[in-house]
Amino acid sequence: MTRPTPLAASGLPPRAFRAPARIRFSQCDPAGIVFFAAWFEMANAVIEDWFTEELGVDFHALHARRRIGTGFAHAEADFFSPGLMGERIVLTPLVARIGGASYALGLHVHRGEQELVRLNLVTATTDLDARRAVPIPDDLRAALTAFQERCAA
Amino acid sequence: MTRPTPLAASGLPPRAFRAPARIRFSQCDPAGIVFFAAWFEMANAVIEDWFTEELGVDFHALHARRRIGTGFAHAEADFFSPGLMGERIVLTPLVARIGGASYALGLHVHRGEQELVRLNLVTATTDLDARRAVPIPDDLRAALTAFQERCAA
Amino acid sequence: MTRPTPLAASGLPPRAFRAPARIRFSQCDPAGIVFFAAWFEMANAVIEDWFTEELGVDFHALHARRRIGTGFAHAEADFFSPGLMGERIVLTPLVARIGGASYALGLHVHRGEQELVRLNLVTATTDLDARRAVPIPDDLRAALTAFQERCAA
Amino acid sequence: MTRPTPLAASGLPPRAFRAPARIRFSQCDPAGIVFFAAWFEMANAVIEDWFTEELGVDFHALHARRRIGTGFAHAEADFFSPGLMGERIVLTPLVARIGGASYALGLHVHRGEQELVRLNLVTATTDLDARRAVPIPDDLRAALTAFQERCAA
Repeated sequence: MTRPTPLAASGLPPRAFRAPARIRFSQCDPAGIVFFAAWFEMANAVIEDWFTEELGVDFHALHARRRIGTGFAHAEADFFSPGLMGERIVLTPLVARIGGASYALGLHVHRGEQELVRLNLVTATTDLDARRAVPIPDDLRAALTAFQERCAA
Repeated sequence: MTRPTPLAASGLPPRAFRAPARIRFSQCDPAGIVFFAAWFEMANAVIEDWFTEELGVDFHALHARRRIGTGFAHAEADFFSPGLMGERIVLTPLVARIGGASYALGLHVHRGEQELVRLNLVTATTDLDARRAVPIPDDLRAALTAFQERCAA
Repeated sequence: MTRPTPLAASGLPPRAFRAPARIRFSQCDPAGIVFFAAWFEMANAVIEDWFTEELGVDFHALHARRRIGTGFAHAEADFFSPGLMGERIVLTPLVARIGGASYALGLHVHRGEQELVRLNLVTATTDLDARRAVPIPDDLRAALTAFQERCAA
Repeated sequence: MTRPTPLAASGLPPRAFRAPARIRFSQCDPAGIVFFAAWFEMANAVIEDWFTEELGVDFHALHARRRIGTGFAHAEADFFSPGLMGERIVLTPLVARIGGASYALGLHVHRGEQELVRLNLVTATTDLDARRAVPIPDDLRAALTAFQERCAA
C-alpha cells in the first residue's frame, strides 16, 4: 500500500463543491480528536448536500421515494493529521470515476491549506426494495458527468 | 408525567438564537425517522454553536483549555412528531434556570411552525481533571444571564 | 424537578433481566466519559436483547416484518456518576406502566452496586407504514405483563 | 483497485479470536442495513475486546493511563453483502503486518459462512500527550507477534 501525499487546499479544482463544517464535541474521542468512524459519517452528510445543492438530485427523495440506494461497495480513508474539536474544516468531494452501476468519489478534508483526511468511496447504485444493483439513474449520471467536467475545466 | 403541548415556532422569543439544520441519512433509523438518541447528539451540536456564536464563550476551549466540563445531570425529550431524512429543521435553545453550579436549558426543534421535539437539559459545570462540581464560570454566567434577559425582552 | 436517589444494584428485583456491557472507546467523549447521547443508544440495544431473549418477541422482526414501531414518545435520564471507558456495567430494564398504545420502562445502569444512570422511556407503538399509533400487540402486551409480574414477585 | 474475494468463515485460522455480535437497530439506516460508518465503529469495539481478552493488553488503560494512542493511519472496507438488523455476526481480527510504529490488521465480518465485510486497518501508535508517533510498546508488540504466530500455526 502506498500512502498518498496530502494536497494543499489551493490545489483543488476551483469549481469544486466545498462544504464547510465544524468538528463537534460528539465526534471526538477520549484522545480529543475526531474518532475515525466519524469521518465516514461526515462524508455521507457532505454527499447529501452535494447531491441536493450542486448536482440537483435530491439525495433523500432518491432513497425514500425513488427507492434507489447509494450504498458503498468500498470505502477508505488516509488520515494525515488529527482533527481537533471546534476546528473549522472544509470537505471537497470530487468524482474520480463513473461506471455502469457504480461511481467513485474522492473526498478531501482540509483545515486551512492542510489536508487532514483523504477518503475514497465507491458507490454502487441499488434497487432498495429488490436489494440488487441497478444502473446509475440517468439524471444522476448526467449530473456526475457535468460536475466532473466542470472540475476538470 | 404531564406531556407538554407543542409550541408554534412563532411563539418563541424573537431574539432567541436559532440554529438551522438538515436531518441526515445517518441520523435516521430503519423506520426512516430520526433515531431518538440522534436528537440528543444534535442538541449538543447546537449548544456548541450557541456558546461560541451567541454567548461568546468558546465551547471547545472551555473544555480543552480551561478544563471546564458542561456535562448533563439530566436530559429529557418529548417527541411530538417524527423528523424525516432531508427535512430542514430549526433548533432554538432557551435558558430556563441558572443555578450555582448548574443551569437548565429548553431546546425546541421545529419544522416550519410545527414543534417536533422539546428537550430539557440540566447542565452541571465540572472541573474535568478533578471530576467534581464547580460554580458556573463568571463569563458563562454573565452570558447566560444576558441571553435570558434578551429573550424575555 | 426532583432528582431521584440512586438505587443499589442489590435493590433491583431478583428476577429482572440484566444485560452486561462494556463501555466502548467510541462511546466516550473528549472528557473521557460516556457521551450522554450514547447512554440512550445503549438503552435501545438493551431493549432489543430484552425483547428477543426475555420477552420472546423478536424486536427486529417486529419492525421489519410486522411493521410495528416502538419509537419513544418521551425519554429522560438522570446522570448520577460518569461511566469511564472500559468499565463493565449492567443495564436492567423494568416495566413501569402498560397503557393502551404505550408503555413506560425504567432502565437502571450500574457499575457494581453503584447506579450511574437512570432512564425513563415511554414507548408508543405505531404502524410504521401508516405512521399512526396502534394498540400494543397482544403478544407484546402479554409478555410485558408477565415480566412485570415476575419482577414484582 | 482490485476487489478482494469473500472468504468463507471456515477458511479463517482455527486459532483466531472471534467476536460475536448482533446488528443493532441504531446501526441500521433508512435502507434497513448497517450504515457503512457503523462497521468501522464496530471494528473498534472488537479491537478493544481482542486487546483485553486475547492479547492481554488493556486497551483502555493503554489510552487512559499509559497515554498511548492506537489511532488509524489508514482504514478501508470492502462491503460484499449488507448486514440486516438483528442478524448475528462474527468479527475476526487478524494481524497482517507489524512495523516499527504501526501495524496492520485485517478484520473479517461473517454471517454464518458468508463474509459480509472485509476491513483493513493500519494503526499508528502515538504519544497522546505529545501527539507524535512512538514505537509499538514492547508488550503490545510481543502480544501481536505471538497472536500472528498462533494464527499461522
